[in-house]
Amino acid sequence: MSARAGIVVTGTEVLTGRVRDANGPWLAEQLRILGVDVGQVLVVGDRPADLLDALAFLSRGNDVVLTTGGLGPTADDLTAALVARHAGRALLLDAALAERIAARVARIAAARGWDTSSPDLAAGVHKQAMVPEGAHVLEPTGTAPGLVVPTGGPPVVVLPGPPSELQAMWPAAVADDLVDAALAGRSELRQATLRLWGPPEAELAAVLRSHGEEHDLSGLEVSTCLREGQLEVVTRHSPARQSAYDALSAALTHHFGDAVYSTDARDVDDLVAEALLAAGATAATAESCTGGLVAARLTERAGSSAYVLGGLVTYANEAKTALAGVPADLIASVGAVSEEVAVAMAEGARRATGATYGLSTTGVAGPGGGTPAKPVGRVHVAIAWDGGHRHARLQLPGSRSQVRERTVVTLLHLLREVLDGRAQQVQQG
Amino acid sequence: MSARAGIVVTGTEVLTGRVRDANGPWLAEQLRILGVDVGQVLVVGDRPADLLDALAFLSRGNDVVLTTGGLGPTADDLTAALVARHAGRALLLDAALAERIAARVARIAAARGWDTSSPDLAAGVHKQAMVPEGAHVLEPTGTAPGLVVPTGGPPVVVLPGPPSELQAMWPAAVADDLVDAALAGRSELRQATLRLWGPPEAELAAVLRSHGEEHDLSGLEVSTCLREGQLEVVTRHSPARQSAYDALSAALTHHFGDAVYSTDARDVDDLVAEALLAAGATAATAESCTGGLVAARLTERAGSSAYVLGGLVTYANEAKTALAGVPADLIASVGAVSEEVAVAMAEGARRATGATYGLSTTGVAGPGGGTPAKPVGRVHVAIAWDGGHRHARLQLPGSRSQVRERTVVTLLHLLREVLDGRAQQVQQG
Repeated sequence: MSARAGIVVTGTEVLTGRVRDANGPWLAEQLRILGVDVGQVLVVGDRPADLLDALAFLSRGNDVVLTTGGLGPTADDLTAALVARHAGRALLLDAALAERIAARVARIAAARGWDTSSPDLAAGVHKQAMVPEGAHVLEPTGTAPGLVVPTGGPPVVVLPGPPSELQAMWPAAVADDLVDAALAGRSELRQATLRLWGPPEAELAAVLRSHGEEHDLSGLEVSTCLREGQLEVVTRHSPARQSAYDALSAALTHHFGDAVYSTDARDVDDLVAEALLAAGATAATAESCTGGLVAARLTERAGSSAYVLGGLVTYANEAKTALAGVPADLIASVGAVSEEVAVAMAEGARRATGATYGLSTTGVAGPGGGTPAKPVGRVHVAIAWDGGHRHARLQLPGSRSQVRERTVVTLLHLLREVLDGRAQQVQQG
Repeated sequence: MSARAGIVVTGTEVLTGRVRDANGPWLAEQLRILGVDVGQVLVVGDRPADLLDALAFLSRGNDVVLTTGGLGPTADDLTAALVARHAGRALLLDAALAERIAARVARIAAARGWDTSSPDLAAGVHKQAMVPEGAHVLEPTGTAPGLVVPTGGPPVVVLPGPPSELQAMWPAAVADDLVDAALAGRSELRQATLRLWGPPEAELAAVLRSHGEEHDLSGLEVSTCLREGQLEVVTRHSPARQSAYDALSAALTHHFGDAVYSTDARDVDDLVAEALLAAGATAATAESCTGGLVAARLTERAGSSAYVLGGLVTYANEAKTALAGVPADLIASVGAVSEEVAVAMAEGARRATGATYGLSTTGVAGPGGGTPAKPVGRVHVAIAWDGGHRHARLQLPGSRSQVRERTVVTLLHLLREVLDGRAQQVQQG
């Protein structure tokens, strides 16, 4: 038994890449948690025929079809009408729903100081309360109701486009009895993620292949991907195949050793945050080529004020001297992109803030500024603490933004390794 | 006449949202520039039947179908074989291509210190040189060749998944004679973007509606979207309808005045960079709630070292005092999230770096840390210069990352307005 869903994302702004779709990936993840496979995510523009074709296509081979977007109050928001046509159902005014929407609209309009008597608002309410005959209404979380629409084939779940509205409505969609019946075949599917830092993708592929030659991997859906220089092995399997997954995980850990840095859901950001908290330690940054990205990433998570004190962006050489205290003659003699300056910057970050660990980056992010001795992609990262430091010289491929992003990730892993090593020293000492 | 394309993005990691697809939006934009409409972007996982269904679906109603991904050296990369099956063509080894791929692989392996005699590498080369009979080969830009595969219907253009490889291969794909013939119906479509900062979306919708009631907007495809708090009006039209677009643009500029901050392709980042360069001015930051995001955004573009000196991330109160020189008793009396501290931070950023403009952020990004007086989303931003400053108090909606992102955008717009105003003063003076 299994259950499968197809997702239609509507909107010309998504199709043309002006807006990044957040709903497809979010719904795919929610469905996975429910034990439902997602077969396709299909993005279409605002043309009626394209949405109708999409609904017909996804209705083949799926147990339920979900749509996002196109539920707004304006005339070009056509999803409800087109799903009604797809289902062969009339579109009717739900008067009670119209009253509830009107009340919500009035509250929003009042809060924003709009003219609540505007005929535009009334027309919008009327439009949003038009519902395919026999559809189940999912109560609006913004102003648009969601719908579960019975068809001759799989039911269509119609959800709003704004991610916060869609996410707030999701529990009601899942609780709907039509949806529940359509997904009756779903079965728990476990997902496990194992992450590696360092080895090449080809070596991982070879290890997976050779493990597969000696073990039965049926029922394990293994996919690997390279993200920000990190290798991820994501495996989905039924509870019955847990032991096969455990054997695979053990084989990878045995072969790659410390390069396997996570066998649970934790990413490098989690590991660094937890290790800093556990050690009662703090971090501060001095960034050149990354221009603030390391500090921004460290402070991305709530509660980071417990272990991030602050940082310096020392983009100009003068700033390296004035803010991080890097001697100007050191920069003059070895250059700003050097091990010596990276270490001095890391020490400067500590000194300026009193942090336990100072983290630094200095490099040539490109596309200009490279020389034969220091080509684009040459980056030095360093970590300094009381009485010690670590340093790494990198040669990173890719665009300016890729070089910057890879630098951040590499520095986070270096910090993770330093924190691991020092924690072990403390245990041994 | 017109030409239309469908795009298939392959990969379970994209389908499940673990990796964000960059290729669909990039290809959609490139095709638009060529005058080709994109009908659909369809994401499928690694299951063979799903890709075959996708190829069949997109072959109806499109003049060309493009695929991305699934061309790697490992056994689960099946795109070439499945496109061959879709086209009813045998998959054959291209021996000359295999030699060229082997040479590329050998260079990469040598650079990374891998064992170049590994049978894994040889197997990968053989796999990547298997080509559907009669297909045109697009020379590899990584190790995977692209393909243009003739079918009974629209040709299929097979492109690699890594964005840098795909983008490097694109000119060859467009130059291919099969592709050129399939897209013969394409016609120039102009796209114009007008950007607003400030007015509500409903006001924009009303102005567009009333303009449409008095003017013929046929042949103009207008879409609006709200991005990072900025409103974008994107219009596509044929050259013949240029005057209708000009009238629409003039009406919006007339109604909204200075809120229209861009009528060409330039975004706020461009405008700020150009204005700083034109004024020979420099900027430096002191960031609390944004934790480095303002500096990271300012240094995103190449050449930013000409106008960004550096910055401070003063996340902890102690750092605000130690790095930005904000008096500790000021923080104690009015709180870190206040106009006074924001202005003091901006002045501190100038003082620490010697920059013309100091930019600051301090606020409650959430989800914790809010109080009735200073709820989550309360942010102060400030800009200081020699003899003056500007400040804004914000109450931003959304998640922690949304609050941080909106803060960055708001500060950039404030800087844009300051730079505009001071440029005008100089002209008048």
